[in-house]
Amino acid sequence: MAEQMEVNSDIILDILGNDTRRKILVALSDEPMYFNQLAKEVGVGQQAVLRHLQTLEESGLIETYAEKSDLGAPDRKYYRLSDSFILTISLSEDHFSMKKRRIAESRQEESRKYYEAFDSTPEEMGSALYSLQENLSDVEEEISALEARLNDLYSLKQQILNRLHKIGVDNFEENERKILYAIVEESPMSIADLSDMIGEKESRIKDVITVMKSKMDKANAQLLFGNLK
Amino acid sequence: MAEQMEVNSDIILDILGNDTRRKILVALSDEPMYFNQLAKEVGVGQQAVLRHLQTLEESGLIETYAEKSDLGAPDRKYYRLSDSFILTISLSEDHFSMKKRRIAESRQEESRKYYEAFDSTPEEMGSALYSLQENLSDVEEEISALEARLNDLYSLKQQILNRLHKIGVDNFEENERKILYAIVEESPMSIADLSDMIGEKESRIKDVITVMKSKMDKANAQLLFGNLK
Repeated sequence: MAEQMEVNSDIILDILGNDTRRKILVALSDEPMYFNQLAKEVGVGQQAVLRHLQTLEESGLIETYAEKSDLGAPDRKYYRLSDSFILTISLSEDHFSMKKRRIAESRQEESRKYYEAFDSTPEEMGSALYSLQENLSDVEEEISALEARLNDLYSLKQQILNRLHKIGVDNFEENERKILYAIVEESPMSIADLSDMIGEKESRIKDVITVMKSKMDKANAQLLFGNLK
Repeated sequence: MAEQMEVNSDIILDILGNDTRRKILVALSDEPMYFNQLAKEVGVGQQAVLRHLQTLEESGLIETYAEKSDLGAPDRKYYRLSDSFILTISLSEDHFSMKKRRIAESRQEESRKYYEAFDSTPEEMGSALYSLQENLSDVEEEISALEARLNDLYSLKQQILNRLHKIGVDNFEENERKILYAIVEESPMSIADLSDMIGEKESRIKDVITVMKSKMDKANAQLLFGNLK
């Protein structure tokens, strides 16, 4: 997959933390617009819209292009969305995560095949629209089913983390728990990895792990900590 | 499912649009903490932490509870996460959506059964932790597979919307397109629904639809607009 400019999750959240910017993105998700159209659609002052458009453009979420005007007027500058992603934020008593996935180019190829199979692309416009409507509702239905199943899995994950945190609080000190959670949740491959993850010196981590091992059966300690090089 | 206080997506984005607040949520997702712990963990001034904690508490994302201190000291106030949701933000050239789903209680029942099936809950602590680690990695694997499939479907949806918007721009005026997109994407059941969705008078919508019908085959116009009461 070609490397495009990728906007990171923190920046996206900084951007989306503003109501006007969200409105601009919603408007542009219907179609590209030029400035006056956009300002009317969003319904706040032109200066504010201009400022937010600059922020959005700098972030890489939108871009501009020029389109010829009729009647010999100067080219018109249009704004359009320029990134394509799904950001999932999950928050529960035992878990906070943000995950950003691109709507991947390679996968678009796959789904294009899938699409051709279930779209007959009728010639007549009304018929094409009706067919798009039906396809969209099929896709939405499958998305809902998968999201429900994912919801079960997130819930399951939450329960697993809940038990983990309970064992952590009942048996370990604060500094030990940090290491424990990182090992169980992230499966680091080495002490060096672990050191990067939690920002502690390797020697310190080794000492803490020695204490932790002393609290459990030797064979099981080996299972849990044994793969750390 | 019992009705809990539900935090809406816009408020969540307002909240998450701040780096310190995100750090507080990440810290509390490991375990509840009292103020000094939290301030140390987040690493910014106490006044700032206090202000953000107030905002988070007002939003309903976190709550406090008191826990007895040792040695007869006053009770200690702890902060913990209090909502449980997955927020999915999807942005592409043809689509912007935010969807918030609770990690549903009813579904937790289902996944609890599932969980019991694949957790042997060993007695010894090290063994229990190793088993949790394995379960977690199985769940993560299944989540990844479902998310990849969902990604295909989102991509497919994007292509359908892309064709829709192309037909819209090629054949309809701006006010007609708004109605077209709402009908195809949201399948409203009545003119009144449609009027709510796009904030136009019903009489105006009826007039526009008459013009739109005139641009397409009568039978197909019936398929597309016919179910609007």
